[in-house]
Amino acid sequence: MKIESDRAQILSGVRWGKTLGSPVSLLIENKDWSNWQYIMSPELRVKSLELNTELITHNSKLQAVTRPRPGHADLSGALKYNHRDLRNVLEHSSARETAARVAIGAIAKKFLSEFDIQIISYVTEIGGVKSSELRVKSQESEKKFLSLFKKAEASPVRCPDSEVEEKIIAKIKAAMKKGDTLGGVFEVAVLGVPVGLGSYSQWDRRLNAKLAYALMGIQAIKGVEIGLGFEMARRHGSEVMDEIYYRAQNNEHRTLTKKSPGTGFYRKTNNAGGIEGGMSNGMPIILRAAMKPIPTLRTPLSSIDINTKKTFRAAYERSDVCAVPAASVIGEAVTALVIADSFLDKFGGDSMEEITRNYEGYLKQIREF
Amino acid sequence: MKIESDRAQILSGVRWGKTLGSPVSLLIENKDWSNWQYIMSPELRVKSLELNTELITHNSKLQAVTRPRPGHADLSGALKYNHRDLRNVLEHSSARETAARVAIGAIAKKFLSEFDIQIISYVTEIGGVKSSELRVKSQESEKKFLSLFKKAEASPVRCPDSEVEEKIIAKIKAAMKKGDTLGGVFEVAVLGVPVGLGSYSQWDRRLNAKLAYALMGIQAIKGVEIGLGFEMARRHGSEVMDEIYYRAQNNEHRTLTKKSPGTGFYRKTNNAGGIEGGMSNGMPIILRAAMKPIPTLRTPLSSIDINTKKTFRAAYERSDVCAVPAASVIGEAVTALVIADSFLDKFGGDSMEEITRNYEGYLKQIREF
Amino acid sequence: MKIESDRAQILSGVRWGKTLGSPVSLLIENKDWSNWQYIMSPELRVKSLELNTELITHNSKLQAVTRPRPGHADLSGALKYNHRDLRNVLEHSSARETAARVAIGAIAKKFLSEFDIQIISYVTEIGGVKSSELRVKSQESEKKFLSLFKKAEASPVRCPDSEVEEKIIAKIKAAMKKGDTLGGVFEVAVLGVPVGLGSYSQWDRRLNAKLAYALMGIQAIKGVEIGLGFEMARRHGSEVMDEIYYRAQNNEHRTLTKKSPGTGFYRKTNNAGGIEGGMSNGMPIILRAAMKPIPTLRTPLSSIDINTKKTFRAAYERSDVCAVPAASVIGEAVTALVIADSFLDKFGGDSMEEITRNYEGYLKQIREF
Amino acid sequence: MKIESDRAQILSGVRWGKTLGSPVSLLIENKDWSNWQYIMSPELRVKSLELNTELITHNSKLQAVTRPRPGHADLSGALKYNHRDLRNVLEHSSARETAARVAIGAIAKKFLSEFDIQIISYVTEIGGVKSSELRVKSQESEKKFLSLFKKAEASPVRCPDSEVEEKIIAKIKAAMKKGDTLGGVFEVAVLGVPVGLGSYSQWDRRLNAKLAYALMGIQAIKGVEIGLGFEMARRHGSEVMDEIYYRAQNNEHRTLTKKSPGTGFYRKTNNAGGIEGGMSNGMPIILRAAMKPIPTLRTPLSSIDINTKKTFRAAYERSDVCAVPAASVIGEAVTALVIADSFLDKFGGDSMEEITRNYEGYLKQIREF
Repeated sequence: MKIESDRAQILSGVRWGKTLGSPVSLLIENKDWSNWQYIMSPELRVKSLELNTELITHNSKLQAVTRPRPGHADLSGALKYNHRDLRNVLEHSSARETAARVAIGAIAKKFLSEFDIQIISYVTEIGGVKSSELRVKSQESEKKFLSLFKKAEASPVRCPDSEVEEKIIAKIKAAMKKGDTLGGVFEVAVLGVPVGLGSYSQWDRRLNAKLAYALMGIQAIKGVEIGLGFEMARRHGSEVMDEIYYRAQNNEHRTLTKKSPGTGFYRKTNNAGGIEGGMSNGMPIILRAAMKPIPTLRTPLSSIDINTKKTFRAAYERSDVCAVPAASVIGEAVTALVIADSFLDKFGGDSMEEITRNYEGYLKQIREF
Repeated sequence: MKIESDRAQILSGVRWGKTLGSPVSLLIENKDWSNWQYIMSPELRVKSLELNTELITHNSKLQAVTRPRPGHADLSGALKYNHRDLRNVLEHSSARETAARVAIGAIAKKFLSEFDIQIISYVTEIGGVKSSELRVKSQESEKKFLSLFKKAEASPVRCPDSEVEEKIIAKIKAAMKKGDTLGGVFEVAVLGVPVGLGSYSQWDRRLNAKLAYALMGIQAIKGVEIGLGFEMARRHGSEVMDEIYYRAQNNEHRTLTKKSPGTGFYRKTNNAGGIEGGMSNGMPIILRAAMKPIPTLRTPLSSIDINTKKTFRAAYERSDVCAVPAASVIGEAVTALVIADSFLDKFGGDSMEEITRNYEGYLKQIREF
Repeated sequence: MKIESDRAQILSGVRWGKTLGSPVSLLIENKDWSNWQYIMSPELRVKSLELNTELITHNSKLQAVTRPRPGHADLSGALKYNHRDLRNVLEHSSARETAARVAIGAIAKKFLSEFDIQIISYVTEIGGVKSSELRVKSQESEKKFLSLFKKAEASPVRCPDSEVEEKIIAKIKAAMKKGDTLGGVFEVAVLGVPVGLGSYSQWDRRLNAKLAYALMGIQAIKGVEIGLGFEMARRHGSEVMDEIYYRAQNNEHRTLTKKSPGTGFYRKTNNAGGIEGGMSNGMPIILRAAMKPIPTLRTPLSSIDINTKKTFRAAYERSDVCAVPAASVIGEAVTALVIADSFLDKFGGDSMEEITRNYEGYLKQIREF
Repeated sequence: MKIESDRAQILSGVRWGKTLGSPVSLLIENKDWSNWQYIMSPELRVKSLELNTELITHNSKLQAVTRPRPGHADLSGALKYNHRDLRNVLEHSSARETAARVAIGAIAKKFLSEFDIQIISYVTEIGGVKSSELRVKSQESEKKFLSLFKKAEASPVRCPDSEVEEKIIAKIKAAMKKGDTLGGVFEVAVLGVPVGLGSYSQWDRRLNAKLAYALMGIQAIKGVEIGLGFEMARRHGSEVMDEIYYRAQNNEHRTLTKKSPGTGFYRKTNNAGGIEGGMSNGMPIILRAAMKPIPTLRTPLSSIDINTKKTFRAAYERSDVCAVPAASVIGEAVTALVIADSFLDKFGGDSMEEITRNYEGYLKQIREF
């Protein structure tokens, strides 16, 4: 999941720094490709430069991977697609595939930033170590969110709470020593979002549902929450509803964003995490996702060879310990894609001028509502 | 959410007890409609039988609802759709709308039952009261699941643990007395599901992502988990991966289902909740959803009238205390729709004979893999 | 196809004459239902009032239709869906099913009329009898189109050319006498449409492709053309390209529409039929569809009983002679749905106020381009 | 449209000659790219090797194209997307973009050929020169179709009728001399297709509608017909319905295909072009598309500069005369995509073994119907 070091090359749809309205295609080259050109060749025959001869690729039966790793797509994928070489599954089911989502998510984030909508993320918990205060803070103002984000960006584990960060690093080191792996929880927040994205009119247009779809679609995610999430199910209605307040509009009240999406209506709490009735309500959108530990570990796990049907003990020399910080970046990307899509659903338009005009018209409408 | 008392009338697509391949349409009549025929009339003019005159419906300005309830779609919906009568929002955003999903979910469940796939649900927690053992049990065999389900069906709060059930009932009574409301958590399990539904090949085809989409699309759901969920993020990789085992197939090993979807491969644990790599892995699929408390309560909440912009205290004489048992039934329905859809994606076919033949061919293929 | 006499009842989504943003559902009752309540019953058992007993519906084997009509879905549908009673196919594949499209098309037309976009249709040809002048005329101004439409609405065969109308009526009478049927060609025109609906950026967003999809999706349609259509393929490039002209905008030049979608750019010809590069170009959109003759006729046709595999001669006492006028009304409806959809794609918006504001902003933009 | 000389490089989804179930991505390099690297650069700044300096790309205002060509997307695209440099439109709206469809169409054709389904095309008419016999022939057996295809593949204008071919070549030469262009008509046929692809159950699942969508989605197509098409609208019902016959199955009767998709039912005519009731009926599917002449011609056409609003006369030194033969190859490709998609809709499956098993099960079912 070392996605940050990849570079995406723009193949189409962008000119002189602007999208053209035609499909944008990006190419992220696998720098390691030279090591795989025979093993993963699309062709049946490959010219071998070293041997000065032609290799028939599928003859190389010895290379077949027949030992499925527990916790991976390997076994189910082989059964589903009738593959007898697990490499046919694992090369695509790998989390490396998320690089594409991060790349197009960056375009969505850039688009949204033109409307002062920002998507941020940070790690709140790894291997059970978490800050008791982080969640409380996250209900607060956009300024505080941005400060959390700044700290997260500076942290090797993307954790904005320096005390917890230390404990997390220690926890990771300990796991590494034992040959074990760790999961964790990250939070994604959307700031500056206007009221009215998504809709209650059909279940599949609910913004929370779309966000859960995208986040659960990231490899290794096992849980998704919005706002207080599971905690909200444990409290009384009188404790968790975000009451509605109003103040006459003035231009100062939201200093963060130039194009304030605000109305006079506001809440003092944000237990709902910015979404009520399947729509954004103008408060920051707060999402949380739980990632399971990396399933490839040095500690051996029992599995079965698909050919011999014999038990073996799966263990791996090289493995990352924890992918949660990287996953939080993917979480930002997929959130940006959903928000940008919902934004265009609502505002339409085929040029930045048109979209901006439509958006500003709506902001005026709801301010004067 | 008293959905059970509704009756769906079949308008098309079914003949002599079988679907025909053409769209199935169902009608659920609102028995309360006579009280709403003027207020919600589609027409501009309504013949009043009592007054022997014609009423112009939109003249009745006094009836406009202008006081948005915190925790509901009311305010965001009014701003988005530019409605000045909140009734235009609340009549559709209401959870009553889920009746349609329950009705078509029943068809999906019937379809799946022909392949011995069962969808069950039960409540594990209300207002913070939960069984410590329930979750452990739920990792076990399909027989135990069915026994949980039986108990849940017999329980007024759909809780299969009789000790917890009592505490939950007491909790609900206490909340009722205080004029407060409660949320909770329910579990949905899919039994008898074959390996290979869903796919790792694109994020939007991942079975877990589709299930999260559908569950989060139910009104008032704030969190969704699969298998161990958030708990899985807190443990080491070596503790939570479901190791892979094998036994030579025999016809006894899965007595539950006539058409066993099993392969020789199996797991002894089910922390993953039956889905790995975005695909069903042949173990029971276990889903958990968190529902917030009902936002309409007798305890008054602060809100703002959209016309006067004045604060008022919203309180409601009549309100249910807890909708979690009803929500678990909706959870079953939407899960059934996703599973049936993924099933048809994989097996194709235009008649029960064709689908069954395709399915059995696949079961033979994976048994002999 | 006697669609005009049906009445659609609004079940949801409309209040006091306005849509609410939630799904609109319409019910069109089959007035003939009482004659079909046993034969097409959704239930396995039906209470017979006359016999004071319960009938088991699927016992009535004598009623099975086993003789597929040439030119209908009967045989292919039976093979595909494995139906042994052709009634299971023919009751849904019937053109009566288009009533639903006409009903929702009426809503789309009403929506578009708010933006002065009008969809009209007329018959140009039946049974080979056609006006030599009609096609030439149809390249002309919107006023002339509306006059064609007025005449068509007054004609029993929806033909605006009174001379041709007479010949068509004679042709239909002759066919009726012989027990034969006739097909024909109708034209649909979209007036007042702005430049820029649809897109060249992906094939499935091309407006012409979407329109062809919808028109070819009407029962019995065998060909679709845009503008000059097949005739355009027979001429030189220098003859058929619509040259581009410009005049400084003034408010008189398009008297037809209040909200003129015009720019200064215009064409003197309209061979392209209002669509170039997959987008509307601001000229009237002109579509033409060819309908085959009704396949149910008194003249006997050879076919095979699906049970006995014996040849029989299919003939029908009662059959319409020509459905082209009715089909042209369906053509209007499906065209309206595509145009309304493309309109909302481009302009977004969740209320008439918002859509109108967005639309007017765009009209100003292109006028000042 | 010189598509044949392009080569597609497989970037993902294929290994050792087989698709893997993961997305297949193809790269077709624009060999002319070096000439466009500044003009179409995605970057705002480009390092110029010749000048040893950095160019700011958008500074090069002189290069803006401001003269829209009649018959192209140029003007409508500029207005829609608010582009002031028409190059932003024309580079993507160009028919070169269809190369991608031809490349993935080749994969679909290969897939279908595994089930002995073949897609062929040939030109029937250019500039009004057409064979009177070609259409009659095309109603006949699959063998004759393949012989037509063979001749078409050997013809420089893809015309299988050698007499007409000569006249077409002469017509093209004459147009070239005059600086003019020509359109024409091509036919696509699908051979070996089983009964039951597509469905009458919803308009958007009708196979004819999907095929019209795809064919009309090709640049410059102005008309689409199925079977007799517009001609069918001119005849009596008794003349054009394809009567149904039956013969006891034997293995000889369809020598063309190894896996015969046939049932005992057959037709002696094919006026319907292989599709009735929105489904394939087992006869060859016959499609016809009309292409307008190339709009870029040496003969000058009137147009307006978007900046100066002055008239100019558009003329082009270099232009092809006729793109119909190339378009017929694109027609094959998009037809293959629709048929492959409908095939997988009906038969499901995640491996060739599974799809084949499902398909053969269906063939047996309909043979024994």
